[in-house]
Amino acid sequence: MRDFLPGQVRHRERVRAALEGVYRSYAYEPIETPALEAIERLTTGEGGENEGLIFRVLRRDLRDLSEVHGVDELADLGLRYDLTVPLTRYYATHSAELPTPFRSMQIGYVWRAERPQRGRFRQFMQCDIDLLGEASVAAEVELLTATCDALGATGLTGFTVRVNDRRVLLALVASSGFPETLSRQVLITLDKLDKVGMGGVADLLAPLEHPDAARRLLDVLAEQQVQPDIQALAKALEGGLADEVVRDVDVIVTSLVDQRMPGVEVAFDATLVRGMGYYTGPIFEIEHAESRGSIAGGGRYDDLVAKSGGPAVPACGMSVGFERLCEILPESVADDDRRVVILHDEDAPLALLLDAARRLRANGYAVGRATRRGRVGRQLARLEADGYHLVWEFGPTSPSPCCGLSRLAVEPGTGGLTPLMMT
Amino acid sequence: MRDFLPGQVRHRERVRAALEGVYRSYAYEPIETPALEAIERLTTGEGGENEGLIFRVLRRDLRDLSEVHGVDELADLGLRYDLTVPLTRYYATHSAELPTPFRSMQIGYVWRAERPQRGRFRQFMQCDIDLLGEASVAAEVELLTATCDALGATGLTGFTVRVNDRRVLLALVASSGFPETLSRQVLITLDKLDKVGMGGVADLLAPLEHPDAARRLLDVLAEQQVQPDIQALAKALEGGLADEVVRDVDVIVTSLVDQRMPGVEVAFDATLVRGMGYYTGPIFEIEHAESRGSIAGGGRYDDLVAKSGGPAVPACGMSVGFERLCEILPESVADDDRRVVILHDEDAPLALLLDAARRLRANGYAVGRATRRGRVGRQLARLEADGYHLVWEFGPTSPSPCCGLSRLAVEPGTGGLTPLMMT
Repeated sequence: MRDFLPGQVRHRERVRAALEGVYRSYAYEPIETPALEAIERLTTGEGGENEGLIFRVLRRDLRDLSEVHGVDELADLGLRYDLTVPLTRYYATHSAELPTPFRSMQIGYVWRAERPQRGRFRQFMQCDIDLLGEASVAAEVELLTATCDALGATGLTGFTVRVNDRRVLLALVASSGFPETLSRQVLITLDKLDKVGMGGVADLLAPLEHPDAARRLLDVLAEQQVQPDIQALAKALEGGLADEVVRDVDVIVTSLVDQRMPGVEVAFDATLVRGMGYYTGPIFEIEHAESRGSIAGGGRYDDLVAKSGGPAVPACGMSVGFERLCEILPESVADDDRRVVILHDEDAPLALLLDAARRLRANGYAVGRATRRGRVGRQLARLEADGYHLVWEFGPTSPSPCCGLSRLAVEPGTGGLTPLMMT
Repeated sequence: MRDFLPGQVRHRERVRAALEGVYRSYAYEPIETPALEAIERLTTGEGGENEGLIFRVLRRDLRDLSEVHGVDELADLGLRYDLTVPLTRYYATHSAELPTPFRSMQIGYVWRAERPQRGRFRQFMQCDIDLLGEASVAAEVELLTATCDALGATGLTGFTVRVNDRRVLLALVASSGFPETLSRQVLITLDKLDKVGMGGVADLLAPLEHPDAARRLLDVLAEQQVQPDIQALAKALEGGLADEVVRDVDVIVTSLVDQRMPGVEVAFDATLVRGMGYYTGPIFEIEHAESRGSIAGGGRYDDLVAKSGGPAVPACGMSVGFERLCEILPESVADDDRRVVILHDEDAPLALLLDAARRLRANGYAVGRATRRGRVGRQLARLEADGYHLVWEFGPTSPSPCCGLSRLAVEPGTGGLTPLMMT
């Protein structure tokens, strides 16, 4: 877990504001849920591997170890590991007070007890949008368009949207000849393709002892890797693909391509799986050359809200990996704040000084104070390094017509003194 | 712990932005620390009653209860209960990279396992500013001035700043005749004055068995309640008060009064104690008639950073109770977003629709979509209730010269349709 220095916080705030501004322009509405959820709700099995990474919170009523029989009884709350579980609970609780369809934007921290490694954090920010109540792929197209716009607004360019569908994957696995009981296992293996390559996937499929099915699956995928094409895939599969599935994927890809968003590539990708078990339809990820792993991803999860005790509502969501995004975006050094420091003696009359500061603020300056100490030149250099662009020397040493302030300014980067005009 | 609906989030964001904007204009710089801290750091004793309210996080390596000997060994992390403990650790870690003096602004959630009651939450937001590296009361004056301005910027008016000093309290208790060993206990009792009144404090002091000291203490305080005056207090005390202490309190009060901030009252208050044990000098609170308890408070804590393993640095801080503030401020209903919904048929051509939406966004509108369903009048009424001000009917039903969009608008509150001009 990390501390953030002021410059880093400002960078993060700029990135966040860019995403948020675009999502608001798509009529997404901000919601907030607490960091802690009931442990039962976090451990339903839908969370996949993340459920093993929960920070569990000790029951407050526990006085003695003899009251419990095992480690599982120690915790009643957990820190959320994503924003989707809280969203489904939120919608189940509040749907009567929310619009239909509901466009949700949730930005907040999540926690996972990952082993420390480069680029992985135990507390990290996610930025989710979800569209609840829309059954058609207009939802997917909207989420993806909004997210491409939002990423563009942060300054990111040159990224690729990969689109697939869980129904394509299930048809692919079934028509290759795997029994349905193995389809989950096959998909988990296929999800490792990025890391282990085709050969690696073949090795991992071998223990399942369906060599013919494995070969057929890999042959089809190898062809798709050369020339991604859902029509060709539908023809190659024994049982074909439902027209609806082909059309859905086609509409998503075509609608994105037709918008000709600058710097955005879009492609069908039959090898895209995504980890979460709860997806029911289209799934998608956005990749950028400078980021290992995707910078955004999501999909349709039509059953999940009902499973969480809410109404049966079609739903589709997209999550931006805020930390990865902040890492690959350059920290802007341009700080258009007009930062002034008032340099004064220990015994300066505070009332005059506060009044001068107030007038500067009213003119749009951010105004700090510093007590004169040691050599002036050195202190000025230090203040400049601390991010002040201008300094006003206050006091009798440099009398000026304006309530004892001298009109002096340090121009950033030069160290030189230039006059500052009061507006 | 609470969920927030979109309107509530917007209200909170407005309040936060107002505070943040003013603090930035005072050159305070944003920092962030993680929600979790090492449990040892949260349980040093400096945190007073809050340490009993920590949400403790279970060790991740624990597989079996036989590995531990007691409840205390179960947790290695805890959720922060305030922002001061993280700040002192942060400064101890990063002081070399930070300006001197350092103006810190930290806004974030803290957690306390309070028993549920009206106005108390287990997750709540605090907004802290701290000035590290300034020994003079110019720091206190700045923190209080900035916070009065910040509260004013949220729309709050009519509040009272109460100022006292830990050194005044210690002199008061000593000169009343209490032995030094009891001073902590006496102050804890005095801190309950707001709740139990003078009679209640007298009852609580009785078991200490220093009736003469208790009487003298209460006599002096009764006089101060009628006519708060630090000069009079100094004369009334057996050992008097150090000149420096009188001057410090006087400068703080006078500097605030002299600024004539509209709607702000300022007064010395010898009965103000504040709970935290770590204060070393001036302490202060801001009260508002509509809020039980203070809405902001703080003080000087010159020893705390060094105790946390950092450099010896004078320090002073102020915390705004964000939740109380949000409660007493009216939720503004004015939403100047120009929210348009595009109403379209299930089979509408998405590319055209997205293009129209994009052009509306470029003109400053927030644009949602809804699929036509059921009776139009009913759906329009529903969309209006959902916060849309304008609706564009898309499709062949109402052809228009502009890419199939009809120029229709629902004026908020009227339900009527009026033309919308495209800019």
